[in-house]
Amino acid sequence: MDFYAEALIRHEAAQGKIETVAKLPIENVDDLSVAYTPGVAEPCRKIAQNIDDAYRYTCKANTIAVVSNGTAVLGLGNIGATASLPVMEGKSVLFKRFGGVNAFPVCIDADTPEEVIATVKAIAPSFGGINLEDIKSPDCFEIEEVLERELDIPVFHDDQHGTAVVVTAALLNALKVVGKDIANVKIVLNGPGAAGTAIIKMMQHAGATDIIAVDEFGILYPGRDPLPGHKLQLADETNPTQMRGGLADALEGADVFVGVSVAGALKPEMIANMASDPIVFAMANPTPEIGYDEAKAAGVAVMGTGRSDKPNQINNLLCFPGLFRGALAVRARDINYDMKLAAAKAISDLVPDEDRSAEYIIPSVLDPRVAEGVARAVAQAAVDTGVARLPMPEEI
Amino acid sequence: MDFYAEALIRHEAAQGKIETVAKLPIENVDDLSVAYTPGVAEPCRKIAQNIDDAYRYTCKANTIAVVSNGTAVLGLGNIGATASLPVMEGKSVLFKRFGGVNAFPVCIDADTPEEVIATVKAIAPSFGGINLEDIKSPDCFEIEEVLERELDIPVFHDDQHGTAVVVTAALLNALKVVGKDIANVKIVLNGPGAAGTAIIKMMQHAGATDIIAVDEFGILYPGRDPLPGHKLQLADETNPTQMRGGLADALEGADVFVGVSVAGALKPEMIANMASDPIVFAMANPTPEIGYDEAKAAGVAVMGTGRSDKPNQINNLLCFPGLFRGALAVRARDINYDMKLAAAKAISDLVPDEDRSAEYIIPSVLDPRVAEGVARAVAQAAVDTGVARLPMPEEI
Repeated sequence: MDFYAEALIRHEAAQGKIETVAKLPIENVDDLSVAYTPGVAEPCRKIAQNIDDAYRYTCKANTIAVVSNGTAVLGLGNIGATASLPVMEGKSVLFKRFGGVNAFPVCIDADTPEEVIATVKAIAPSFGGINLEDIKSPDCFEIEEVLERELDIPVFHDDQHGTAVVVTAALLNALKVVGKDIANVKIVLNGPGAAGTAIIKMMQHAGATDIIAVDEFGILYPGRDPLPGHKLQLADETNPTQMRGGLADALEGADVFVGVSVAGALKPEMIANMASDPIVFAMANPTPEIGYDEAKAAGVAVMGTGRSDKPNQINNLLCFPGLFRGALAVRARDINYDMKLAAAKAISDLVPDEDRSAEYIIPSVLDPRVAEGVARAVAQAAVDTGVARLPMPEEI
Repeated sequence: MDFYAEALIRHEAAQGKIETVAKLPIENVDDLSVAYTPGVAEPCRKIAQNIDDAYRYTCKANTIAVVSNGTAVLGLGNIGATASLPVMEGKSVLFKRFGGVNAFPVCIDADTPEEVIATVKAIAPSFGGINLEDIKSPDCFEIEEVLERELDIPVFHDDQHGTAVVVTAALLNALKVVGKDIANVKIVLNGPGAAGTAIIKMMQHAGATDIIAVDEFGILYPGRDPLPGHKLQLADETNPTQMRGGLADALEGADVFVGVSVAGALKPEMIANMASDPIVFAMANPTPEIGYDEAKAAGVAVMGTGRSDKPNQINNLLCFPGLFRGALAVRARDINYDMKLAAAKAISDLVPDEDRSAEYIIPSVLDPRVAEGVARAVAQAAVDTGVARLPMPEEI
């Protein structure tokens, strides 16, 4: 199938991908008087008295905003808010289809982090959570950090943390396949942008101790100038031996390569210098850092990519629907690392021990058990870490 | 039925009134590749090249925002953005149910007009139109005026213009019932706030020449101090004989009373001093300026209120769904007076000559012909006045 041509056909035929639908019938004057005036005044009064009643009487409880300013859309770059709408609509559809969460695409015509922050804060009353999407680095860090601090609803930048959760899930199972321990492996992360930075922090939270970050200028180390804020922090918190050099140097003896960089960045000869049973996650989109077959031929033990036409598709669709479903179910104030790690473990646990192999380290994106498993794990972690405002429900 | 109690029950059982639903199936990997990556990149690219393609490939074409900052909600006053959410959700439901227009409630946590304007401008890319709702006067005037000027999508403050359209529709038929001409009648408008001001302008656009506006301090006339901006303008553009005094003075010899003021404002003895066959529209909510039966007993020929339990319910639900449906159908840039007057005439025309009476001047809010009739009339007026970006379609 030519996905590009088919996308134009289907998008035009349906005039987009999402619609709003009433949950209450309006068939007679009484229905009108209950859903609208005069009856609607009563839930308004209740919420005016106790703002938490918005979760009881409105869509806020199960509705999130999928927010972008269109500055880093897919591989297309800064195409603007309006042109990002198909992606945000698509994401909204996936939230509903896989997580049962209502999601609305909010494309923000704003270039500065301050404008995005002000806009999201202003519209937050309608939403139970905020999913940030396709916002350029480093603005995405500031936007997420400020919104997390200033809003009392969960805020999650999926490009960073969704990717990090699913990479971690894949890594946990890949390490089981090769019989290594996360605390003892050397990991090289190529491309420490928004996603790369989050992956590093997530792997550290999962127990990794020896991570080397490499950007287009080489290995990050303290004192390498000039570095923007997030890389400065990475330089301090990775690379324990303070090694210097390029990607090939970093990969000598490494157990794991994680790429969120560019097509072709990983060469077969670099793989040859990695430790035994190397693990490679090559996630550049749409063309990975090295092809699946080429990597296997070069000796890679476990190979993952973002592609659906090869084994081990590392796709953040495995995370975000269930993650928000779980966070909303217990009305979590934040989405913390314990919740994200719980999501990663829930995803990896869906691959049974007896089925796990080099070609099967992560469940299918269409596996209906994924969102529910992630939701339960995330909700429980929210309760356990004290960020939940509701107890763990019987059903999610 | 106890509408207040029932509203709490139904709102809680359904957890609000609106949900988002996918318009495309996502059943397999191909579906995912069309609705999301990689296929979704193609509509993004098209829109990046030609921003109008957003209307072709996304929900923007048929989706509006129902926007409020919660500063003047129903009769409840300034209850804040979150507490206004049940009303905005309800309005969104009505847009879909009656007009087939997708609508999403956007409750803005902002007190100043500037913040509301900045927020609506920022989120406009996702929407084909903006319906403003329950924003206090005089802020609503500035917000609507600036947004109308600076956005290329239609902006409509329903509390003002929706009410004005439906009052005008009712007036056109009431005048037919009593055999008077709008150009020759004396009209008294009590309560020149947001709705009252719009009603006056709309009636003038429909041909009225002799309108007296009365506020809580009496008749508006040039030089009466102090007057806020919108009343200053009304003082100049109404009251052709520059009369002074109170409501009772204004009503002497008047043909029409239109009240958007407070319960009990109109007394039977004032009606006795009106012209023959007086028309009274008493729309204070939930208790009108004078009761239906009391007004009829005092000699009113044609009586209308906002209530559903009496004849002639003047309810802006007759206007807004069809109005936006028509404006979106021809991609109107604005909603101008010709379009609003066309809506008023379409509503009044749905009462056939042979059925029109003092008890039947306006169709039922549940009449399924209303939204379509309004939509066709509004679309045609948009085409005729040059604000439409598409030609008149065969079907609306």
